[in-house]
Amino acid sequence: MKVIKEPAEVRKTVNRVRNSGRSIGVVPTMGALHKAHRSLMSRARAENDFLIVTIFVNPTQFGPGEDYSSYPHNFKEDKEICSRDNVDVIFVPDKDDIYLQGHATTVNVTGGLTDYMCAKYRPGHYSGVATIVAKLLNIIKPHRAYFGQKDYQQFRVIERMTVDLNMNTEIVMCPIVREQDGLAVSSRNRYLTKAQRRSAPYIYKGLKEAALRIKAGEAVESKYIYEFIMDKIPEAKIDYAGVFDAKKLTPVSNIKNDVVIAAAVWVGKARLIDNVVVKTGEKQWRVS
Amino acid sequence: MKVIKEPAEVRKTVNRVRNSGRSIGVVPTMGALHKAHRSLMSRARAENDFLIVTIFVNPTQFGPGEDYSSYPHNFKEDKEICSRDNVDVIFVPDKDDIYLQGHATTVNVTGGLTDYMCAKYRPGHYSGVATIVAKLLNIIKPHRAYFGQKDYQQFRVIERMTVDLNMNTEIVMCPIVREQDGLAVSSRNRYLTKAQRRSAPYIYKGLKEAALRIKAGEAVESKYIYEFIMDKIPEAKIDYAGVFDAKKLTPVSNIKNDVVIAAAVWVGKARLIDNVVVKTGEKQWRVS
Repeated sequence: MKVIKEPAEVRKTVNRVRNSGRSIGVVPTMGALHKAHRSLMSRARAENDFLIVTIFVNPTQFGPGEDYSSYPHNFKEDKEICSRDNVDVIFVPDKDDIYLQGHATTVNVTGGLTDYMCAKYRPGHYSGVATIVAKLLNIIKPHRAYFGQKDYQQFRVIERMTVDLNMNTEIVMCPIVREQDGLAVSSRNRYLTKAQRRSAPYIYKGLKEAALRIKAGEAVESKYIYEFIMDKIPEAKIDYAGVFDAKKLTPVSNIKNDVVIAAAVWVGKARLIDNVVVKTGEKQWRVS
Repeated sequence: MKVIKEPAEVRKTVNRVRNSGRSIGVVPTMGALHKAHRSLMSRARAENDFLIVTIFVNPTQFGPGEDYSSYPHNFKEDKEICSRDNVDVIFVPDKDDIYLQGHATTVNVTGGLTDYMCAKYRPGHYSGVATIVAKLLNIIKPHRAYFGQKDYQQFRVIERMTVDLNMNTEIVMCPIVREQDGLAVSSRNRYLTKAQRRSAPYIYKGLKEAALRIKAGEAVESKYIYEFIMDKIPEAKIDYAGVFDAKKLTPVSNIKNDVVIAAAVWVGKARLIDNVVVKTGEKQWRVS
């Protein structure tokens, strides 16, 4: 396993791999790797000849007052995990080699995809995400890039961006990895106190309950999810909770197509996001 | 010479060329090819093994009320020119194959580069330009792409965009091609009446006069260029005329670095742009 800091060197390495006819998979991360990252790496490892994990805490996707400076990092541990998981290259660039002096370009995905859900509460966030992912994909030009379903909006934004900018990379969504009690695995879970950690799984329970009701043919309003969560986690501050079109990410009241039931909830210092997708296109609606 | 409409087919063709170790040059155009385009093609032909000319009148770079619907086109003539000039592939995509349904992504170059000059008078124009060029470069992934100095701001915007988005394409600037009387060659010159055509070269004369004064150590104010042009072309409507930093494109009064003296002037139905660069970094200041 090689650890590479220089964009030019990683480009050279992947060009050699690509020219030899081998496929390249990339898992973009902000480090602090945990079992959800490892599930992406495992899928990417299985589907590609060459596996790159990028580790870069991207400043442009954090808003003022967000946790950029305190975002967890532990490169020694990340490196051990990558080594054990058969990663070929860790690309861990310096900030100044990614955003050169005079950097002035942003990639923006507009329209419904960034009108609701997290985009509404984190202005500029998905522009920062789209820009850094465009850069990483242009450096590496992988055959496939892997993202988790947990940030569902991120996936849809990146998928749209790669299609719209004619990038030749398949964007693959991997299922949410959960703790035994249902809480979605996240680097930010470590911000929770013990008591908060015990109540946090009720976010998922609320979304799942809503999904089961939708599956049973009931109409589910945001109010139902709000009240479910607030009842179980009185200290919660809900940014949003609701039912959105799974492709367009716009709010849905009269459900006809696939939907994503999603929420962003502050529990103490942690802003937790989670979602459940209900596929209506199949005979049996499937909840995932 | 092959004429290709499908992005996927052009991608396949260039991949084959690249894999065989040959270099690829691209000249992006909106068609209506003339001798300025041909100078780009000639340079690209000399510097690359494989030459692609793209022809696409990009709707997103035209503002409301601009000449999108009346922009000149003559594919038969363009094809003859390309064939004579040893072009390997003309890529002439349909609008709907470039902007797929649901297209929602823009590439924006912000900061000083788009605060002045044409950007101020054509809001959204360079976002449209940056987006279409990002798309074309991602499809073709050429070694070099060629643009004229005439739209100097376009060159700087595209250069910045390719660096910032880690595109591995060298952006090459080619000198302005002029008619015998000095008028910069442009597809839009055909909008001029005979009388307007006779007075239009005074735009260049004004810029050049300003350049010679700067070279002689004089301070040149926008007012000087305005008055020179208005004196010679009374019917002109000047969007802007002035001296700008050649790299940052911000207005300059106290000249220390290279500058570009640029103007956009309406003469009848034609919005004409032109510029002269004064290089101060060399012992002998050079005007080009």
